[in-house]
Amino acid sequence: MKISELSRTTGTPIPTIKYYIREGLLARGTPTATNQADYDESHVQRLRLIRVLREVADLSVATLTQVVAALDHPEARARADHVATALRSLSPEPGPISERSLDSVANLVDRLGWEVDEDCAGYQSLAAALTALEEHWPSPLTLDQLMTYGRIAERLASFEIPEDWNPSESANDALTYAVLGTVLFEPVILSLRRLAHVDRHRRLIADRL
Amino acid sequence: MKISELSRTTGTPIPTIKYYIREGLLARGTPTATNQADYDESHVQRLRLIRVLREVADLSVATLTQVVAALDHPEARARADHVATALRSLSPEPGPISERSLDSVANLVDRLGWEVDEDCAGYQSLAAALTALEEHWPSPLTLDQLMTYGRIAERLASFEIPEDWNPSESANDALTYAVLGTVLFEPVILSLRRLAHVDRHRRLIADRL
Repeated sequence: MKISELSRTTGTPIPTIKYYIREGLLARGTPTATNQADYDESHVQRLRLIRVLREVADLSVATLTQVVAALDHPEARARADHVATALRSLSPEPGPISERSLDSVANLVDRLGWEVDEDCAGYQSLAAALTALEEHWPSPLTLDQLMTYGRIAERLASFEIPEDWNPSESANDALTYAVLGTVLFEPVILSLRRLAHVDRHRRLIADRL
Repeated sequence: MKISELSRTTGTPIPTIKYYIREGLLARGTPTATNQADYDESHVQRLRLIRVLREVADLSVATLTQVVAALDHPEARARADHVATALRSLSPEPGPISERSLDSVANLVDRLGWEVDEDCAGYQSLAAALTALEEHWPSPLTLDQLMTYGRIAERLASFEIPEDWNPSESANDALTYAVLGTVLFEPVILSLRRLAHVDRHRRLIADRL
């Protein structure tokens, strides 16, 4: 398709498409004539992803570039590493990290039997979150309490990534979904937890009246 | 204690303390002499809360003011309403909301049997999150899938707010904890989910090699 059709299909203005190409966020089209190029479904998909990342996740172009670089990286050691890199780029720089919280994360991961590296998505941000808890929450979180959170996260992951998930079918789609899944589903989970808290508070108050 | 001790205890500079008092974020101390005032444990607690909200949650002073106003509101219809208001102030303005996603939330809440109002913390943000999913996720989320998320949220809430939670003991503490719990525990949950996803991806890839 021509750039004008790509623009219509995705709702992205032509100057913005050109800007994304210059910034390396979108592949060039296949040249067809002087100053013309042909775009395909992969361009449509990429523009949709960029739109979610900008509008829903509110990412800056700089962060967007990192996420997309992770998606486009040609030498995948393993696809899971790429998912990890892409997800890491989505998070803000984690805050300060204490030795003690790094130990807690290591113990937790060990006890859960998770195969995750220290530079993995979530590992550093979990340590930073535990450091903030240490400093600001009145009672320290025990390993047992952390395990409960860990088991709930496992349940989420098994539900969200089904047994028949097939990475070889379309590696790039899998990565795109991992990124989209993070951006789109995190607000669902957090909103539901807040709602569940309100319900739980009401219920416990009602029980005592 | 004098303002100098309050400053030392909480690590907050005296000009900042005075600024918070002017902005209504912190109660005035009890006057003891010309230009002197006495501060107590409630001032220490409040300054700690403000620090978490500024440093961990990265809230603006404007948002902080809303959260604190909800905490300080004297006419609590029910304490749960206050928790809801305080939590609502923590979230960014939710994005666009479709009729269809509002219906989904209503159906879900009904089926879960949750007692939550439409203006409740999480209700509008859940609808906004579902609207974003409708627009950007390839397959619509079914009510059954939403129910699974809802049940997981229930499990979190029952674990986090124990049966013997007693709102009458110290209402203001309960509110403070609700706010702190949101700010400090959300990153723990999201980080663990991301880690669990990485582990799940690795596991499914390994199973197929």
